Amino acid sequence: MEALERTNLEHTDGYGVDCHCERAAELIREMTKDPDASVYMMTGGTSCNVTVASCLRPYQSVISARSGHMYYHETGAVEATGHRVLALDGVDGKLTPELIDKAMSEFEDEHTPQPKMVYLSQSTEIGTVYSRSELTAIRDKCDEYSLFLYLDGARLGAALTSRGNDLSISDLAALCDAYYIGGTKNGALFGEALVIRNRELSDHFRWMMKRQCGLLAKGRLIGVQFEALLEGGEQSLYYEIAAKENRIADILRDGLGEMGITFFSPSTTNQIFPILKAGAVRELQKEFFFYEWAKERGGLIPIRLVTGWGTTESDAAAFLDAVKRIR
Amino acid sequence: MEALERTNLEHTDGYGVDCHCERAAELIREMTKDPDASVYMMTGGTSCNVTVASCLRPYQSVISARSGHMYYHETGAVEATGHRVLALDGVDGKLTPELIDKAMSEFEDEHTPQPKMVYLSQSTEIGTVYSRSELTAIRDKCDEYSLFLYLDGARLGAALTSRGNDLSISDLAALCDAYYIGGTKNGALFGEALVIRNRELSDHFRWMMKRQCGLLAKGRLIGVQFEALLEGGEQSLYYEIAAKENRIADILRDGLGEMGITFFSPSTTNQIFPILKAGAVRELQKEFFFYEWAKERGGLIPIRLVTGWGTTESDAAAFLDAVKRIR
Amino acid sequence: MEALERTNLEHTDGYGVDCHCERAAELIREMTKDPDASVYMMTGGTSCNVTVASCLRPYQSVISARSGHMYYHETGAVEATGHRVLALDGVDGKLTPELIDKAMSEFEDEHTPQPKMVYLSQSTEIGTVYSRSELTAIRDKCDEYSLFLYLDGARLGAALTSRGNDLSISDLAALCDAYYIGGTKNGALFGEALVIRNRELSDHFRWMMKRQCGLLAKGRLIGVQFEALLEGGEQSLYYEIAAKENRIADILRDGLGEMGITFFSPSTTNQIFPILKAGAVRELQKEFFFYEWAKERGGLIPIRLVTGWGTTESDAAAFLDAVKRIR
Amino acid sequence: MEALERTNLEHTDGYGVDCHCERAAELIREMTKDPDASVYMMTGGTSCNVTVASCLRPYQSVISARSGHMYYHETGAVEATGHRVLALDGVDGKLTPELIDKAMSEFEDEHTPQPKMVYLSQSTEIGTVYSRSELTAIRDKCDEYSLFLYLDGARLGAALTSRGNDLSISDLAALCDAYYIGGTKNGALFGEALVIRNRELSDHFRWMMKRQCGLLAKGRLIGVQFEALLEGGEQSLYYEIAAKENRIADILRDGLGEMGITFFSPSTTNQIFPILKAGAVRELQKEFFFYEWAKERGGLIPIRLVTGWGTTESDAAAFLDAVKRIR
Repeated sequence: MEALERTNLEHTDGYGVDCHCERAAELIREMTKDPDASVYMMTGGTSCNVTVASCLRPYQSVISARSGHMYYHETGAVEATGHRVLALDGVDGKLTPELIDKAMSEFEDEHTPQPKMVYLSQSTEIGTVYSRSELTAIRDKCDEYSLFLYLDGARLGAALTSRGNDLSISDLAALCDAYYIGGTKNGALFGEALVIRNRELSDHFRWMMKRQCGLLAKGRLIGVQFEALLEGGEQSLYYEIAAKENRIADILRDGLGEMGITFFSPSTTNQIFPILKAGAVRELQKEFFFYEWAKERGGLIPIRLVTGWGTTESDAAAFLDAVKRIR
Repeated sequence: MEALERTNLEHTDGYGVDCHCERAAELIREMTKDPDASVYMMTGGTSCNVTVASCLRPYQSVISARSGHMYYHETGAVEATGHRVLALDGVDGKLTPELIDKAMSEFEDEHTPQPKMVYLSQSTEIGTVYSRSELTAIRDKCDEYSLFLYLDGARLGAALTSRGNDLSISDLAALCDAYYIGGTKNGALFGEALVIRNRELSDHFRWMMKRQCGLLAKGRLIGVQFEALLEGGEQSLYYEIAAKENRIADILRDGLGEMGITFFSPSTTNQIFPILKAGAVRELQKEFFFYEWAKERGGLIPIRLVTGWGTTESDAAAFLDAVKRIR
Repeated sequence: MEALERTNLEHTDGYGVDCHCERAAELIREMTKDPDASVYMMTGGTSCNVTVASCLRPYQSVISARSGHMYYHETGAVEATGHRVLALDGVDGKLTPELIDKAMSEFEDEHTPQPKMVYLSQSTEIGTVYSRSELTAIRDKCDEYSLFLYLDGARLGAALTSRGNDLSISDLAALCDAYYIGGTKNGALFGEALVIRNRELSDHFRWMMKRQCGLLAKGRLIGVQFEALLEGGEQSLYYEIAAKENRIADILRDGLGEMGITFFSPSTTNQIFPILKAGAVRELQKEFFFYEWAKERGGLIPIRLVTGWGTTESDAAAFLDAVKRIR
Repeated sequence: MEALERTNLEHTDGYGVDCHCERAAELIREMTKDPDASVYMMTGGTSCNVTVASCLRPYQSVISARSGHMYYHETGAVEATGHRVLALDGVDGKLTPELIDKAMSEFEDEHTPQPKMVYLSQSTEIGTVYSRSELTAIRDKCDEYSLFLYLDGARLGAALTSRGNDLSISDLAALCDAYYIGGTKNGALFGEALVIRNRELSDHFRWMMKRQCGLLAKGRLIGVQFEALLEGGEQSLYYEIAAKENRIADILRDGLGEMGITFFSPSTTNQIFPILKAGAVRELQKEFFFYEWAKERGGLIPIRLVTGWGTTESDAAAFLDAVKRIR
């Protein structure tokens, strides 16, 4: 906010070609040790996913976990550009090399769409994180089948600063053809920084952005926010916000675990999915806002808790107290 | 062929508005006891499927069995028009009311595409046939959720004349919002007769056909063939061809069954899927043309045999002899 | 900015369903005397245009002036959704009833797309404004042919506060099926308020927004800005900013006119298109930023001057002085 | 017809990979002296146009004369795949190098679609023919701007055998990146032979065909017809039919010209556009079938006469007699 105000009276070129967008891009190239990367300031995650996927040839498709945002929560926006999203039942919300083999084995000839891109999220929609070995194995599969690897980083900060994470952002970047660093869910008002490493995907990309309604007139708005978020690399505001969210989430996770509560997903990030009694869920909803993640089964409901940049330790303590009291 | 030659010198209006198309439509309205149905002469099955599905609103999707032709063998042609095809693992290649419930339960709000059409094939891609009670139960589900029911009849003749079928064409028509009577796979050189009963789907349909490359300049070619195929209702050439194909298929099925060979699918129509030893498959391929239907597993391969309008009883006998000899 | 900061710590529902969006919508319903209007907070003008146009049936097209933004400056984003934009040479950047007659006369039957929407901009891309009688005549044509009338208000403030304008915002609203009130070009950081009056166009509109990447996670950002801009109706910040821009533009227009300089377009708003000698243009570009609007012809170049919310009277005076000195 | 009947009992591979399609392709490669050309058997002209155009990158557009079939008579089928067709007012139905310059000058940057393909018809929709020098000049422009040149040959036979034509089919082929040899309007029941010379356009073309509903199950049907039509090169049935149609058209053209009747278009092929008095048109319509080509103006109406493979010299004489009697 401060950064936006400070820059509000500057005159800049429009449509994302300005000094703030350029500086934000430079910061990303440095922190990822990737001097040749193309960086684009995007308004939202769906916009990133759609614009990247629509760079495929018309008959090509994208492989995604069924829980993947591109498949599950974007109203068919990729299909709207004419490409199938091939959904597979993931393991803890993650794709595996075996699943990619399976998808490729269904592709036969000109009667079937050709899978050409693997889409995954880090962290996933259920809070899990790909390890270095998992992501490397998927990269190897992509090489085997000549697939692009595209990583949705809406919650990338949460992954990078989570317990047990063994991938730095530069490791991760090196394994992907394209990915984005999510701002909206990591302290920005809005905006994502899309990074394209493979030039086959960045051909005339600004044309593709405009065609998909993704070229913001005052593009500097996003540039300014990423400048402010990323300055300092691993000591930046971006890491700080994410780490804090994870820390509060760990308090919740540990606290709930100590009460013997089990979880819908082995999340290690700022989304937690405790499974509670239906009655307790109803009671908690009077005091706290959260989603029910799945339908009631056997009297139990998994809920989703998400810690945000404004969530405090005392918020977490209050929730844990309430659960102790109610369950 | 004969009918085409006889009419080759006639002068007719173009683009499917001629006396042959009209007569073919009239025959269909009579045999289905459906005087208000709209009938369109189409060049192929994919063209039918795509043009019907593209009549949905942009955010709507189609429910299909994973083995459904629309999902499995059309190179994403429906997705090319911007609509998701939601694929579900069918039971013997068929959708069930429970699967439709499952698909609808995934639809939440504006973040997910809205399923609006159920696509099924009669007979299915693996030769099975929906019974009256099965199809009625699906119709009821469609009514419950306000879904269109669209039936792909590429192999409709095979279904109508198969052992154990309990649905007449007029019964079937009454349960559907749209369906097509397949010509290509039932004696025609090419062409399918698409029947639309629900006017919500037929609005400006000829515009949709042209836009999807489906309006044949000399539309009479298809009309002439369907006139010849359908004259006589259940005594027509259409039924005769299909019944003969099923009869030869039954010979194969019974013969293979007597040898103790099992089948990949409980087909009752002119596609049969015996599971043979890999070595036998290799030997048989030297003499006969057929597809391997799935990959080898445990030394066994399911193959697909299809009887056509030219297949004879002695062809069947020769194949059975070869299997006896080789397996 | 102030308003955004003040609301930064509030907890609100996401995706444009929050109290700020609702309050902004209420202000719009009041100032347009249109209590039943549907209002959507959009990220940009292209997003408005594309999402509205994509609500047409697949075979329908949009009529636009060739200079219209939808046709000329959006990289075919409407065509990307499958709809033709039918471009006509406008008169001073405007459509006329005669042009609509012409477009409709080209529409024959199922071999041609069906024009179904008229797209116009107020003010136009070359700064002109539709008068009450002009817009009413177009509305009448739309009624005659059953066309939707959609108005792009990226520069609506400039039109409403321009010399000689005889249309209030409620007059204008009453003539349209849909329109948007532009924020990006009228004081907002970003965002447009799309108003849909005809329910045929608003069916499941939030699904359409999501599908076209137009649903902002933190939708309140746009709501907050429109609250701040529109509070007070014709005394609002929105009118104040636009009126000031027009006032400075009038100074430029009058000053240039007094020097005998002619204009490319009879603009009455904050875009002015003086035609200057090529040499003078080169000199002025050293001191001022502006676009050349068309290629040099006969030693002359039309340029585009746009006054913004930060342009001052002394900026205008400096430009006029420079022109006097240089031309 | 004869050829189709002769081959009706053959067993061939499906989907256009059979000996007849291959032989037809070979004949085309020979007569065009183009041994590396890729040839595809297509069901119709719209299908050719759409499948070729949809091979462009998403942000690219096609340049066409306004009267071009792709723009004027295909219900926006190319736009349905997301590409703009940029329509220009042609000269006698033809594009010119100057028109291409004009189209390219409108293309600026990422805010405008990038023209990438020139579409023209030979003969055109109003019966005119590109000369060698005209087509060469357009090829040069295409090279200058890196544009594909695609020629719609729905009426190619009529052009090749017309008075004054100075382009052989091999000359013409050498100037194009892709073109099709029309069957439907030149003696075939249906079908066009699409020839792609530039490999950038033929990448995975069969996938594109299937996706656009253009892969005919019994592809041999088209192959068989082209075998029969093209055997013999310039002595083939294809040339013979076209030459006969032109000859009868010349009789009509000359006869009408001798009566002092003027023409809407300087056609030299089998479409003729005499301008007749409205009253005479009404009278003639009682005896003959033809289209009115444009609206009545000053008491006169241009009509379109098309000679077909069945039109005889006495048909022409009867028409001329009627005009003499009635006009």
